[in-house]
Amino acid sequence: MTHASARETRSAERRSASSTPGTERTPRVAAARKLLRRAGRDRAGRFLVEGAQAVREALDAGPVHELFVTDVAADRNPELLAVARDHGVPVVPVTGKAAAALSETVTPQGLVAVCDLLDVPVTTALAGTPTFVTVCAGIADPGNVGTVVRVADAAGCDAVLLAGDTVDPHNGKAVRASTGSVFHLPLARDRDAAGVLAACRDAGLVTLVADGGGERDLHDPDTAALLAGPVTWVLGSEAHGPGPEVLAAADHRVRVPIHGRAESLNLATAAAVCLYATVAARA
Amino acid sequence: MTHASARETRSAERRSASSTPGTERTPRVAAARKLLRRAGRDRAGRFLVEGAQAVREALDAGPVHELFVTDVAADRNPELLAVARDHGVPVVPVTGKAAAALSETVTPQGLVAVCDLLDVPVTTALAGTPTFVTVCAGIADPGNVGTVVRVADAAGCDAVLLAGDTVDPHNGKAVRASTGSVFHLPLARDRDAAGVLAACRDAGLVTLVADGGGERDLHDPDTAALLAGPVTWVLGSEAHGPGPEVLAAADHRVRVPIHGRAESLNLATAAAVCLYATVAARA
Repeated sequence: MTHASARETRSAERRSASSTPGTERTPRVAAARKLLRRAGRDRAGRFLVEGAQAVREALDAGPVHELFVTDVAADRNPELLAVARDHGVPVVPVTGKAAAALSETVTPQGLVAVCDLLDVPVTTALAGTPTFVTVCAGIADPGNVGTVVRVADAAGCDAVLLAGDTVDPHNGKAVRASTGSVFHLPLARDRDAAGVLAACRDAGLVTLVADGGGERDLHDPDTAALLAGPVTWVLGSEAHGPGPEVLAAADHRVRVPIHGRAESLNLATAAAVCLYATVAARA
Repeated sequence: MTHASARETRSAERRSASSTPGTERTPRVAAARKLLRRAGRDRAGRFLVEGAQAVREALDAGPVHELFVTDVAADRNPELLAVARDHGVPVVPVTGKAAAALSETVTPQGLVAVCDLLDVPVTTALAGTPTFVTVCAGIADPGNVGTVVRVADAAGCDAVLLAGDTVDPHNGKAVRASTGSVFHLPLARDRDAAGVLAACRDAGLVTLVADGGGERDLHDPDTAALLAGPVTWVLGSEAHGPGPEVLAAADHRVRVPIHGRAESLNLATAAAVCLYATVAARA
């Protein structure tokens, strides 16, 4: 069978398997659109995952309730649709306009999955014997949260806990910035930042908060010795740094040394430096 | 004198010092608008600096040719305008609309300075005995370039060299992401990436390129020993990694170890990890 005729056969299968593509007004598309907002996600317990790479991760990771797909995207990703069907995921053809309405990107890929929220209770995230955990305590920018989850994944963290006013990691921008890492390690959400730090301590972890005014230098030998043991890194707000509650609750406040004339690092790069100093201390 | 009457006096001074505020069509505003584009900047040898903090850095760093300011911004930043006048910088009142036309931000601050381009020849940037240099080789995103300059500043680099197809560090987004660091250390631009690496080697620096497939692990003791000596870190394109020319020209290819299921780090966090591993090796 030629490539062209295989595509025709798939298109024919799609046409026979479903009626006309769903539009923005189709009830299941309209319902899914509510998941673009945090309140809608929390109410439904579900979120949207967009694009071929992220949808593939979602299919690997757990239950996908439905997969919205445009004709163009279906032709581009036949193997992905086959995996979805193998998992028993309903594949819902939609118009390009409907796919765009479910998308937060400038150039929608025409592939959007509806998935269960990923977060688990803090105690579940800290089950077993964690030795390396990251806590986001008041991170407001979804791109930053996604990037921190990605760095935590790369550094080998056991879990990421999202405390205080931290933005929802199921936000589309956060999911995209994580490049799949939201599916790779346990995530937990809890507004009570001090309670989250106490849970970390109960799990045997020393709590370190990254703070420009911290009493410990990241590169002191004493700090390296700490980092070789079980630790939680706590990262505060990008605008205001860690709050007084978090600074008081942590075991140590650690500063990234600044050698030039910069005032500070931005949140994502500071997180990367702290988490990888921990990796280095264990190498 | 009360605060209110001091403000009235200043406003009166401004009115007497100049006629009506410049608009988008005023020739010097129209000329400055051309600096929003790279071709305009390269032709004029000048760039725009926006916002109180960045303008302050620009006034500290070198010649500022003119400072466009709205009434509101003038009232908010009297000390900054005093510094500008002390430096003999012409202060040009403009309308809010003119300031917005000179701005690339969503909420313009009403303060835009015209400054000389910052870059110097590569040989000038490498003068003296540099021990720690960063080379951007093909970084396309201005936010990434600005963030790398900020991290290089914080890590104590002697210079940042912008090679290959790297975006202009005088781009507004790059300047903003650097939070002033473009003014703190020598910057040089040269399209010939292999030539830039050769110049680094001539300056006594070992050249290391950050590469996911690199033969050396960042955390190997051998690598730490290298990092304690004079080195140049080379950072490639965020989309494609370092090009073959750069990989071949560098003395070593170094990978950041990935311990979880993430495929990689993003460019800015990888840069932060590499540059701060160097700081740690010298602590």
